[in-house]
Amino acid sequence: MGILRLSHAEVRVPDLELALAYYTEVVGLIETERGVGPDGGERAYLKAWDEHQHHSLVLVSAPTYGLETLGFKVEHAADLDELSASLADAGLEVARHEPGSLGAGSGATARFVAPSGHTVDLVHGMEQVGNSLPLHNPPPAPADLIGMHPPRIDHIFLLCEDVDGVTSFFRDVLDFRLTEQILADDGYQLATFLERSHTPHDIAFLTGPNGGFHHVAFWVDDWNDLRHAADTCAYHGVTIDAGPTRHGATRGCGLYFFDPAGNRNEVFTGGYHFDPDDEPTTWTEAEMGRAIFSYKGQVDPRFMTNHT
Amino acid sequence: MGILRLSHAEVRVPDLELALAYYTEVVGLIETERGVGPDGGERAYLKAWDEHQHHSLVLVSAPTYGLETLGFKVEHAADLDELSASLADAGLEVARHEPGSLGAGSGATARFVAPSGHTVDLVHGMEQVGNSLPLHNPPPAPADLIGMHPPRIDHIFLLCEDVDGVTSFFRDVLDFRLTEQILADDGYQLATFLERSHTPHDIAFLTGPNGGFHHVAFWVDDWNDLRHAADTCAYHGVTIDAGPTRHGATRGCGLYFFDPAGNRNEVFTGGYHFDPDDEPTTWTEAEMGRAIFSYKGQVDPRFMTNHT
Amino acid sequence: MGILRLSHAEVRVPDLELALAYYTEVVGLIETERGVGPDGGERAYLKAWDEHQHHSLVLVSAPTYGLETLGFKVEHAADLDELSASLADAGLEVARHEPGSLGAGSGATARFVAPSGHTVDLVHGMEQVGNSLPLHNPPPAPADLIGMHPPRIDHIFLLCEDVDGVTSFFRDVLDFRLTEQILADDGYQLATFLERSHTPHDIAFLTGPNGGFHHVAFWVDDWNDLRHAADTCAYHGVTIDAGPTRHGATRGCGLYFFDPAGNRNEVFTGGYHFDPDDEPTTWTEAEMGRAIFSYKGQVDPRFMTNHT
Amino acid sequence: MGILRLSHAEVRVPDLELALAYYTEVVGLIETERGVGPDGGERAYLKAWDEHQHHSLVLVSAPTYGLETLGFKVEHAADLDELSASLADAGLEVARHEPGSLGAGSGATARFVAPSGHTVDLVHGMEQVGNSLPLHNPPPAPADLIGMHPPRIDHIFLLCEDVDGVTSFFRDVLDFRLTEQILADDGYQLATFLERSHTPHDIAFLTGPNGGFHHVAFWVDDWNDLRHAADTCAYHGVTIDAGPTRHGATRGCGLYFFDPAGNRNEVFTGGYHFDPDDEPTTWTEAEMGRAIFSYKGQVDPRFMTNHT
Repeated sequence: MGILRLSHAEVRVPDLELALAYYTEVVGLIETERGVGPDGGERAYLKAWDEHQHHSLVLVSAPTYGLETLGFKVEHAADLDELSASLADAGLEVARHEPGSLGAGSGATARFVAPSGHTVDLVHGMEQVGNSLPLHNPPPAPADLIGMHPPRIDHIFLLCEDVDGVTSFFRDVLDFRLTEQILADDGYQLATFLERSHTPHDIAFLTGPNGGFHHVAFWVDDWNDLRHAADTCAYHGVTIDAGPTRHGATRGCGLYFFDPAGNRNEVFTGGYHFDPDDEPTTWTEAEMGRAIFSYKGQVDPRFMTNHT
Repeated sequence: MGILRLSHAEVRVPDLELALAYYTEVVGLIETERGVGPDGGERAYLKAWDEHQHHSLVLVSAPTYGLETLGFKVEHAADLDELSASLADAGLEVARHEPGSLGAGSGATARFVAPSGHTVDLVHGMEQVGNSLPLHNPPPAPADLIGMHPPRIDHIFLLCEDVDGVTSFFRDVLDFRLTEQILADDGYQLATFLERSHTPHDIAFLTGPNGGFHHVAFWVDDWNDLRHAADTCAYHGVTIDAGPTRHGATRGCGLYFFDPAGNRNEVFTGGYHFDPDDEPTTWTEAEMGRAIFSYKGQVDPRFMTNHT
Repeated sequence: MGILRLSHAEVRVPDLELALAYYTEVVGLIETERGVGPDGGERAYLKAWDEHQHHSLVLVSAPTYGLETLGFKVEHAADLDELSASLADAGLEVARHEPGSLGAGSGATARFVAPSGHTVDLVHGMEQVGNSLPLHNPPPAPADLIGMHPPRIDHIFLLCEDVDGVTSFFRDVLDFRLTEQILADDGYQLATFLERSHTPHDIAFLTGPNGGFHHVAFWVDDWNDLRHAADTCAYHGVTIDAGPTRHGATRGCGLYFFDPAGNRNEVFTGGYHFDPDDEPTTWTEAEMGRAIFSYKGQVDPRFMTNHT
Repeated sequence: MGILRLSHAEVRVPDLELALAYYTEVVGLIETERGVGPDGGERAYLKAWDEHQHHSLVLVSAPTYGLETLGFKVEHAADLDELSASLADAGLEVARHEPGSLGAGSGATARFVAPSGHTVDLVHGMEQVGNSLPLHNPPPAPADLIGMHPPRIDHIFLLCEDVDGVTSFFRDVLDFRLTEQILADDGYQLATFLERSHTPHDIAFLTGPNGGFHHVAFWVDDWNDLRHAADTCAYHGVTIDAGPTRHGATRGCGLYFFDPAGNRNEVFTGGYHFDPDDEPTTWTEAEMGRAIFSYKGQVDPRFMTNHT
């Protein structure tokens, strides 16, 4: 089977307490544990309310902001062996880690550095902590949710120099499916959208510096939740970067804003079901503005360059 | 009783056919009549689908864009006499017009030029044409609505040099109630919001040139309709100026966009019920950005200066 | 000017503490005061969050459930004199009460018993307590709202034997406007909808016993809020009577449920703007089911008979 | 990989033209082809607008209503061999069919009769016809959608005598995952919900006669679309069976209604993402009402017995 979906992101923040206040009270994630990472640095583990696993976001105390690692969940333990073999065949070094050895709750992990410069973990068996609803006769949601309270992580958007090459790697070696692409007039890929969960994207790449981090997105259930998220930002004085708006690519709707460290967040909803035999959609360079922001039809240069 | 609500706006457009296509197909208004105005110029009369009266928007063929007149609906025929007397007491000239004499469907009218430089009509008895639903056992809406299809006009936003003076005039002479104001640090009113319909505003003024026209707004029923309106703009290539967003002042949500002539339109929803004994809300100059765009927290200078 | 809108309802509850817990935690109203009424009985005063006046719902400790009185807000103090004179001309006894004499926060009041058997208060100058938002640079809503948290009261639905006669009384003596009616096949009015606030209804009457109380309704902002209200009922085990659904009459959408004493509540949204010169809509007896519940197209007999 | 998701349902209708008018104009599906089935009977092929494959609903001219077959989409051609082997191991007869041999657009198919008495097709390579949007720079949706216009099929709900046994079969032989179950007080399964697409259910079973068909559901994007669907039913006089409401099980929201032949349809939205290592939710018999209709908390007996 292989990769199921985006599992989690580890994000650097210089002020862990401030970031934690933001992610729990504004975004409305749930802190599951505090601890130290394998490097001895302080960490906070967070999950969205409807996730069952130990964490989908790890805040890593660090001198600056940015992405530390991202993780994909695989279905079977054996997928780690198969994908590790594929990665090795592709010439990459893969490090295997026992459950718990990469921090609190961590599962069996195959870690590698992708050609995009990002450290990627393939994970099986992360500790399950439940979604805080009872397993018998549950209500549709806990009553004490605050902030934007997205139910789960959705996708991650990264930057890299060679979008064509990185996209081929994710398709050929990790079996991702291309759903959409923005093509430059001279034919190379300006941006690509890739999925394993039959949605518009689990991961996307935009032309930029290797290792660049554009945003991590959490799912919300509808357009009304996006207004609630925007009201929540306004209420707390959180800087909104863009939205609520619709994207041309993915057809989804989103709101972008920044955590106190400067990492961009999105809450996202909508989009479509993607079958493996569906054709990808292509956007031309002239329509890139509309591909990203369907309503404005243009992209603020800051949106393309302000990344971490 | 006096003024009930904003009745209609007459808007100048150089290309009447193009404007008509836009207002019927994109905005989704309904053309009720073509004709010539009292000045002999060509006109198109439009109404929102749920309005019963002959028109709420008149397109006036003219060399340039901008606002020709705006109209308020009064409850009783006698209100025209009383308000005319009040206007005369305030030193203004009032011209009375018979039904039909100011164009198709027009009611008995008292016309004057407000201190803001805008021509204002007080109207009683505009021709009633019905809302296209049957009077017996109607469905909630006609089945053939297209575009944004707002049910009715909501408010108008104008510019004038002396907001304090104009606001006093509308309150003292026409019995408008102040709901919100943005105060400059040195105390004068940068913007004011005035109502007669127990809503956040029927008319609003922003500091600018006398006679200036910022936008006319149509009501839509909810936040979902704003997304539909934005999708409709995107589909037709109509330039979106701002939104979907929430306003700090009025708490309403809106989307701004331009007609083919350059007149700004808004679709608006939300806000509150205002009683005559409620206190107005005041925004400070430092918070003007948030008063206008709650999410961005700042106003693009173009939004303040691009008016007609 | 006369009557502005529905001001408040006084509702009987045998267990004041239980009712108060329900109205504050489930409905999400705000308790403004506890006290004793003019009859010496215990009372709790509640308001919806965005109302500025002292109360829109009064819980009256009583051996059984039902409606004690309903109140309309008038614009000017002089309206009390004029409407009292009209009522006296119509042969009704009117009792005038000083501010504060009819319980905490009460304004100057003209009280009478309508031909429908209901005690009605016309009120001017109820104590203003504000809507809990600051008057300078407010957020769109307080951050600590719970339950359904409607912003305001909307309408009241009563029963009476002679709907035709009562409707004439409200139109002729109190200047209400008829917006919709359900006509029996033999021509009499089965139900009527009347307004003063340019909405589909401030008050409505259904054929039944004089003095009967069908429901009091609070406004919510959209269809999403109705789902939230239904989820809130389900979470707290509150019995839902009907909905979320759309009404044919008023075109509004609503959810019906019961307070712990058995008084029916509604949360309502939607509907239209009604001008004084608009024509009322008529429903035939055969379409009464759809007039009330547009989706089911039929009315559960319990809905018609279970009243208080 | 195996089964991806529910692919399609073949539904019997006595009046093909009437059913077709309903499914295209009320539900808003798109007719892709008319033809004759392998049995020589007349058929109409329909798809939801955002589906890329030839059909998700086949109307089969037949003397009565009910379900003819249901189909699941598999990822790889080889999945048909593997699943056929598993089915044979489980003692079932599997018939293999070439693309096109089971009607217009049909893919390579492995057909068997499940222990529930339903004929099931596993399909690979159904003809692709696209979703009517261009593959370059598409708008978010076609402009000419009518009716409820769901983007895709969602799930199917069937009846069978031995829910425990059938559920084991779908889990063990076809690798479905159990997401929710309603347990009778004496321990057997009254209803089960099973998925392959990481959603709350692709298929569900309720205790009843073998071969019974409760409903087929199409996805809509949000709660607002459910109101639109209900308005559409009301507009066309289509009988609404239940809703708009929320389900306790799946947490989704839905609306039930009947096609002209008496087949029950649902439009459904919401629910959650289900990982293979998530725990199923269990409802007790006492809470069965709330499991199905969260708002009413009880199930109309008709809902349980009126099946086809």
